[in-house]
Amino acid sequence: MPELRKDPVLGRWIIIAKERGKRPTDFVIAEEPVLGGFCPLCPGNEKMTPSEVLAYGREHDHGNSPGWKVRVVPNKYPALVIEGELEREAEGLYDKMNGIGAHEVIIESPRHDDSFAELPSEHMILILKAFQHRIQDLEHDERFRYVLVFKNYGKAAGASLEHSHSQLVALPVLPRKIYSELTGSLTYYKYKERCVYCDIIHQELKQDVRVVCRNDHFITLTPFAPRTPFEMWILPIKHSSAYHQQSDEQLTALAQIFTESLCRLDACIPNVPYNFVLHTQPLRSENLSHFHWHFEIVPKLTSIAGFEWGSGFYINPMPPEEAAMYLRESLERIS
Amino acid sequence: MPELRKDPVLGRWIIIAKERGKRPTDFVIAEEPVLGGFCPLCPGNEKMTPSEVLAYGREHDHGNSPGWKVRVVPNKYPALVIEGELEREAEGLYDKMNGIGAHEVIIESPRHDDSFAELPSEHMILILKAFQHRIQDLEHDERFRYVLVFKNYGKAAGASLEHSHSQLVALPVLPRKIYSELTGSLTYYKYKERCVYCDIIHQELKQDVRVVCRNDHFITLTPFAPRTPFEMWILPIKHSSAYHQQSDEQLTALAQIFTESLCRLDACIPNVPYNFVLHTQPLRSENLSHFHWHFEIVPKLTSIAGFEWGSGFYINPMPPEEAAMYLRESLERIS
Repeated sequence: MPELRKDPVLGRWIIIAKERGKRPTDFVIAEEPVLGGFCPLCPGNEKMTPSEVLAYGREHDHGNSPGWKVRVVPNKYPALVIEGELEREAEGLYDKMNGIGAHEVIIESPRHDDSFAELPSEHMILILKAFQHRIQDLEHDERFRYVLVFKNYGKAAGASLEHSHSQLVALPVLPRKIYSELTGSLTYYKYKERCVYCDIIHQELKQDVRVVCRNDHFITLTPFAPRTPFEMWILPIKHSSAYHQQSDEQLTALAQIFTESLCRLDACIPNVPYNFVLHTQPLRSENLSHFHWHFEIVPKLTSIAGFEWGSGFYINPMPPEEAAMYLRESLERIS
Repeated sequence: MPELRKDPVLGRWIIIAKERGKRPTDFVIAEEPVLGGFCPLCPGNEKMTPSEVLAYGREHDHGNSPGWKVRVVPNKYPALVIEGELEREAEGLYDKMNGIGAHEVIIESPRHDDSFAELPSEHMILILKAFQHRIQDLEHDERFRYVLVFKNYGKAAGASLEHSHSQLVALPVLPRKIYSELTGSLTYYKYKERCVYCDIIHQELKQDVRVVCRNDHFITLTPFAPRTPFEMWILPIKHSSAYHQQSDEQLTALAQIFTESLCRLDACIPNVPYNFVLHTQPLRSENLSHFHWHFEIVPKLTSIAGFEWGSGFYINPMPPEEAAMYLRESLERIS
């Protein structure tokens, strides 16, 4: 019998179609051919990108030159532009405003062939810290309300450049999904006086069937009502609504679990394309008792794409308990 | 300057990135190879599908045999099963229920190679009528709250069989997106005492920049805040919340505009894969003054897929005014 499951924050129902049950080996992803050719993100080509806004690792003071370990530059083809005023206005019953915002590229490594999931821990920490610094910096710009940090890995997930990178978009509005999480978790908080994500973590640790891995500060789990096979969330165990306020100790633990989670995913489905999105509180927000920052990692398995995103209604052939089992066993199986 | 636009019903913001402006010819879709081989949906193979629930066009009384023009059968690999009770229950803070529902396939033509957009008008009417009859029938089952009618056209949009078909899923819950439309349009109604979709139609007819085509009963437009290039909505001009209550005269007009809209889309981007989803009122609902049934047609242009559906935040490189212009001119250009 298939099962219908409700996301406790969004209220979204998902069908878990066990009868269509799939094993990780049913998802075979072709390795993407190496394209070669000129790469604007490689060291030596710093002048080919817009002028950097952040760089870590140089032992000299010359910007836009080699020697960096992580480098953040404005996107050369931005979806939003940084200069101008919002000029909110109506068009009859419609609302619009100028597309003001920042669109930046976080170049995750100087080495063209490095894979995000295989970076050493101290390097991963730099990337996570760069996300923090950019959010802190963009928070000063009163025009922006949210910074959306995300990564498209693999062509099927929307990556257009081979060189390992993530992106951020600073927005003058809240993305719909973040807004729904904020209101959904507030409704729960008003009723229970507890954070729904804290309750989820508590229950997941107790049940221990959807936990992929954990360390002292973080937990990775497959959510109760996942949209796709192998969807994973990484959450801090201690309540916090603001990613950019996490301590260095916490970032170190996050780097460890992020790498471990992605390695487990790759061990289950080699080369699987995925997107991750950081969900954190809006800019210049008070700390929120009802919201809990986290990363959502969503593998792109086209075999299950379809009308789903048009209706908000998802059919997932793999129960998250099974996905968690495969993910837990994956590294052990390989070694 | 890019532009941010808000969907007046859902409150979802979209970036229209004009600078990334694309023309229809930038989207080149490879024609899908004809697979051939055995087709369970073809006449003569009626015994290979579960027993039919509806068939039009036979001149004899023998079910599950050739002679039909449109045939509806249960999906052989259903996402939900028809028999059983819902048995709603909690799992700690989570909610779940049995995956009870109907999952049916509407076989749109006996001819294997027929294309949905090229069917003659009287045949198209039969398909639209089959949607109505199935909704009317499933409405009697008290376990169900919504019937989701949709089509996946082309492999990239999720179609797994070549033979032209659409699908329906009867659900014991409301899909998230329909729920958001019902609440969003109700909020507008409470404030204005008018249907937001009626207001949209009124404004679109007046402005005449996003209208693709119209006839006496229907209008096709590109929405103000579209998620993808060439997204189209087909709406009845006269207010109605219930698709299954439309008269035969209205279905005839709908058949005409549906075919015309898809032909215009195909003339712009030959072979483009798409999904369409019917948005109508919940089962056994009173007629709703605030909600307006419609079809949403969303082309699947993978070049713009990415993190969007994970964040609910869309970047669309083509303003709907331009898309409407291309769609309006497309058939004239070809003939």
